[in-house]
Amino acid sequence: MEKEEFLGLYRHSLAHILAKAVIEIFGKDKVQYAIGPQIDDGCYYDFTLPRSVSDDDFKAIEDKMREIIKRREAWTRKEVSRAEALELFADQKFKKELIEDLPEDEIITIYYTGDDYVDLCRGPHVENSQELMNTAYKVKAVSGAYWRGDEKRDQMQRIYLYAFPSKDELKSHLAWVKEAQERNHVKIGKDMELFMFQETAPGMAYWLPRGWKMYQELMKFSREIQDKHGYTEISAPLVNNKKLWLISGHWAHYVNNMFLVPGVTKGTKATDTIKLDEENAFNQIEAEFSIEAEDTMAAKPMNCPNAMLTFKRKTRSYKDLPIRYSEMDVLHRKEKSGATNGLFRVQEFRQDDDHTFVTNEQIKDEIMDVISIADEIYSTFGLTYRAEFSTRPEDFMGDIEIWNRAEASLKEILDEKYGEGKYEVNEGDGAFYGPKIDLQIKDALGREWQCGTVQLDFQLPHNFELSYSDSDGSIKEPVVIHRAIFGSFERFIGIITEHFKGAYPFWLSPYQIGIVPIRPEHNEYAEKVAEKLREAGIRVEADYSENNMKTKIKKFKTLKDPYILVLGDKEAAETQVSVNVRGSNQQVQGVPLDAFVNACVKMNKERCLELLTEF
Amino acid sequence: MEKEEFLGLYRHSLAHILAKAVIEIFGKDKVQYAIGPQIDDGCYYDFTLPRSVSDDDFKAIEDKMREIIKRREAWTRKEVSRAEALELFADQKFKKELIEDLPEDEIITIYYTGDDYVDLCRGPHVENSQELMNTAYKVKAVSGAYWRGDEKRDQMQRIYLYAFPSKDELKSHLAWVKEAQERNHVKIGKDMELFMFQETAPGMAYWLPRGWKMYQELMKFSREIQDKHGYTEISAPLVNNKKLWLISGHWAHYVNNMFLVPGVTKGTKATDTIKLDEENAFNQIEAEFSIEAEDTMAAKPMNCPNAMLTFKRKTRSYKDLPIRYSEMDVLHRKEKSGATNGLFRVQEFRQDDDHTFVTNEQIKDEIMDVISIADEIYSTFGLTYRAEFSTRPEDFMGDIEIWNRAEASLKEILDEKYGEGKYEVNEGDGAFYGPKIDLQIKDALGREWQCGTVQLDFQLPHNFELSYSDSDGSIKEPVVIHRAIFGSFERFIGIITEHFKGAYPFWLSPYQIGIVPIRPEHNEYAEKVAEKLREAGIRVEADYSENNMKTKIKKFKTLKDPYILVLGDKEAAETQVSVNVRGSNQQVQGVPLDAFVNACVKMNKERCLELLTEF
Repeated sequence: MEKEEFLGLYRHSLAHILAKAVIEIFGKDKVQYAIGPQIDDGCYYDFTLPRSVSDDDFKAIEDKMREIIKRREAWTRKEVSRAEALELFADQKFKKELIEDLPEDEIITIYYTGDDYVDLCRGPHVENSQELMNTAYKVKAVSGAYWRGDEKRDQMQRIYLYAFPSKDELKSHLAWVKEAQERNHVKIGKDMELFMFQETAPGMAYWLPRGWKMYQELMKFSREIQDKHGYTEISAPLVNNKKLWLISGHWAHYVNNMFLVPGVTKGTKATDTIKLDEENAFNQIEAEFSIEAEDTMAAKPMNCPNAMLTFKRKTRSYKDLPIRYSEMDVLHRKEKSGATNGLFRVQEFRQDDDHTFVTNEQIKDEIMDVISIADEIYSTFGLTYRAEFSTRPEDFMGDIEIWNRAEASLKEILDEKYGEGKYEVNEGDGAFYGPKIDLQIKDALGREWQCGTVQLDFQLPHNFELSYSDSDGSIKEPVVIHRAIFGSFERFIGIITEHFKGAYPFWLSPYQIGIVPIRPEHNEYAEKVAEKLREAGIRVEADYSENNMKTKIKKFKTLKDPYILVLGDKEAAETQVSVNVRGSNQQVQGVPLDAFVNACVKMNKERCLELLTEF
Repeated sequence: MEKEEFLGLYRHSLAHILAKAVIEIFGKDKVQYAIGPQIDDGCYYDFTLPRSVSDDDFKAIEDKMREIIKRREAWTRKEVSRAEALELFADQKFKKELIEDLPEDEIITIYYTGDDYVDLCRGPHVENSQELMNTAYKVKAVSGAYWRGDEKRDQMQRIYLYAFPSKDELKSHLAWVKEAQERNHVKIGKDMELFMFQETAPGMAYWLPRGWKMYQELMKFSREIQDKHGYTEISAPLVNNKKLWLISGHWAHYVNNMFLVPGVTKGTKATDTIKLDEENAFNQIEAEFSIEAEDTMAAKPMNCPNAMLTFKRKTRSYKDLPIRYSEMDVLHRKEKSGATNGLFRVQEFRQDDDHTFVTNEQIKDEIMDVISIADEIYSTFGLTYRAEFSTRPEDFMGDIEIWNRAEASLKEILDEKYGEGKYEVNEGDGAFYGPKIDLQIKDALGREWQCGTVQLDFQLPHNFELSYSDSDGSIKEPVVIHRAIFGSFERFIGIITEHFKGAYPFWLSPYQIGIVPIRPEHNEYAEKVAEKLREAGIRVEADYSENNMKTKIKKFKTLKDPYILVLGDKEAAETQVSVNVRGSNQQVQGVPLDAFVNACVKMNKERCLELLTEF
């Protein structure tokens, strides 16, 4: 049996044990039990219960499960008729609904665990609870869930279980979870004062001074590379009339994800006498908003349509192509309330976006160049990645010949770059408007994140009636390449924050040096050192307060400044510095200031991944 | 008689002549004439006419006016009763309405010009048309206007007249107008490919690659200075829930100028089958939007409220102040349709905004520093400015003692900086939340523009319940200083584009050097020169096309690149360049490349206003 299959078998069985335990604790007539699927690190089960389950209940549940397993009860599979099944689960409304939804001809199977607990299930399961004796499990959490994920239906309690084949594996998984929690970017973002969220702007980050410095460094890095590769940056309106979204197709396919600014069909009226009181304010403003109004607008969720208009503004010749319009404008995408998640899923973000307009013949070279940019960017962070290639779907749009040639080019690039079979192919998984390559980076915890994407688009140039005159004088439609390497900067910052655990490479750290004068009489020399570093383009912060040395050092350590310089009598006299290197408990003493500055400049220039420790 | 009074007298009289001329041309029973006030450079008169007036009519109107003046008709003033007036203007609906709106006890005066034309008017006027013989006038334009500026009332035609005391003065004014037209930033923006507007985003600029480079240079300049002065930049959500705007007061005072994102009270429904057809799309999307919905949001028109929350996120001590939060986020302000004007009046823009949180004692030093930043910034553009001081209004908010002290500080600064009486004081013209200093810059055409502003605010910190603990342990409210020096970057770019007529200083030019290889065999050396310049941080563009030298040079001249390098055999052999300096027709030959690069680096570093021409 494959490990995955085994995991499935016993995780699924443990879900039954979990349900049986909960029923025994709360009483059979008090519990409605619904479904209990396995998941990545265990399983869960959904219930309605007479009261809320909390952390305090976890041990009792685990103990009860252990007790049940020790009973060595047999698992009995039975096939029953629909009528029998409905009678058996007469008191269980969710099970009844599940049974009623089964196709007429489906064989209904039920599983008994012992005599007193029965569940509707396709199986398979272990044959006796005894088989679960050596497994390791632990209640992970309880959360709210809706029956069938529908917020209009019953609200349930979902109890999660970690479940592994052995204690060692559970232990190592729990260690991984602990590490992931410590790396949580929202926590680190708060500790390092990088960003915050407020309830008046859900899923939209406030970038605090330190985080915004990093964000700007990332944009600067992206711009430098793009500049080198012949991209020119544009910036376009963030809010556009629905006419634009109708042409682009966003109105038809994406309207639910857009922040809409409906036009006013009946005049808005605001008076200066409105009190700062919610009730009154609303009563005094009268307006009817409708997306049918001509002046209806929407915040842009993507940059594409504006880039199309920018291309279209003048006549283009084949000699002008490729034209590469990068842009980093702020985008807005509406997420369901509660679906936002730190920087990983936001409603407002910037991408390192680009739209390149090419002839069919230019596709290969251009995409090769995009891949080389991805290499350059990801390797700067020490991140490896793998490529996924998605090809023509059934409902493809455009000329099949163009598709074939484009896909052949992409395949050639991928073979050349990564080796045949060294990338995943998702047949038929491309967008209807063109094939694509996605780049999945892997973080320090082994998690994969799709950041980069290169997509061909035969549709948008068509919708916007773009054209260029070819060398033979004929009028042709350009192909558009959409690409992003970071993806959303917000999400990327979330990823690398967890990847580096907040200990960013030198060039990216909000402040790169924290300066600690040991006593106030050393402030003067500290100021000189700070100035020297600033002039060399280093981001420096100094603590001239009356706090003692230890407090100051501790503060900069919490903020994870790569280096902390400690300056006292010795240093002031000899233009030397004592350097605390992040991640080391040692203080390197007697470092010549000039050598240190040079090391810093080198790290900035080369965007070094590791901190230099030899000066 | 003062010149201004004289101008008023005869401009007003010429408005009557204009009306009389129009009546004689179109026939008395076909014309309704309304009002004809004087304006800066002449006067206008509003009419309803049997047909649209166009440029083709201007000469006939001017001729008719000349003819009337030559008649040397007497101007007769008469006082009449309300009843007489109403009878006299029985056929003129606008005049009748004006008469009816006059206070009961007002003496109604009418003026006859000759026997056959009478106007309702307070006067005074010339006594005989003869007096107008030596004046100079010219029809300037015709435009649409609404009776009493109300778009629900009659639409009229407004005929504008330039009017001056002498032909010389008219001539010099027309030259000024021509110069202003040539400097028009929208025209220059198009010629130099800096920005554009599209109808799907009225009043929101598309920044094309060249314009966006400039825009970024301006932001970089601003950031450098702010960094040096201890500002830290933040970035906050662009869209915020109405709860925030209720606290800040924007909901009560500014709601009509905000792009509102009303919440949905009845579910939006979009389907994938919608055709790209406006009618169908709307029929298939059902939603009711209302600002009463809890999730109603609005795009931010100002940065202030978010800055307040950023301050509020943690406990503050007097030791932390001043805290200076600069921000350049995109702002949105709704303008009436048609009120937008190139980059001068837009609906989307960025400011070099800042909110500084200070104690009362810190106000003076802080504002002194803001003024020094303004000096540094404006002088970089060679712009002079003057200050206006606006003091406590009657409906002021807060403690009068704090106002008094704050105003005394501002006065001290202004006296010290500009000299007593060397700045304007607008008594009682401050905002209700605090006194302010506005900075008016003067452009090359002598026009004034209010760009800089420094405002004290005692209100917002109160609304947001901000506080800090003072040295004695007491809890105090900080004062907020709002300031911007550029004002809106969009508007500032519009202003300097007209000021420099597109010939921006070297450091700000979109591309700084255009490179012209004389023939294809010189491309190689041209590439080397381009690379050398790029490495030195210079923005270079080269034309490697097969066009001839003259065409290439002309292109870069149109784009106003500060220098055009022309490279041929001689240059390639000797590592020299031939330099065309913008604004000069001469080509400086045999310039050593290194000396040229050094000159460019120097201009960038020092943000030189003038181009260096000695290498």
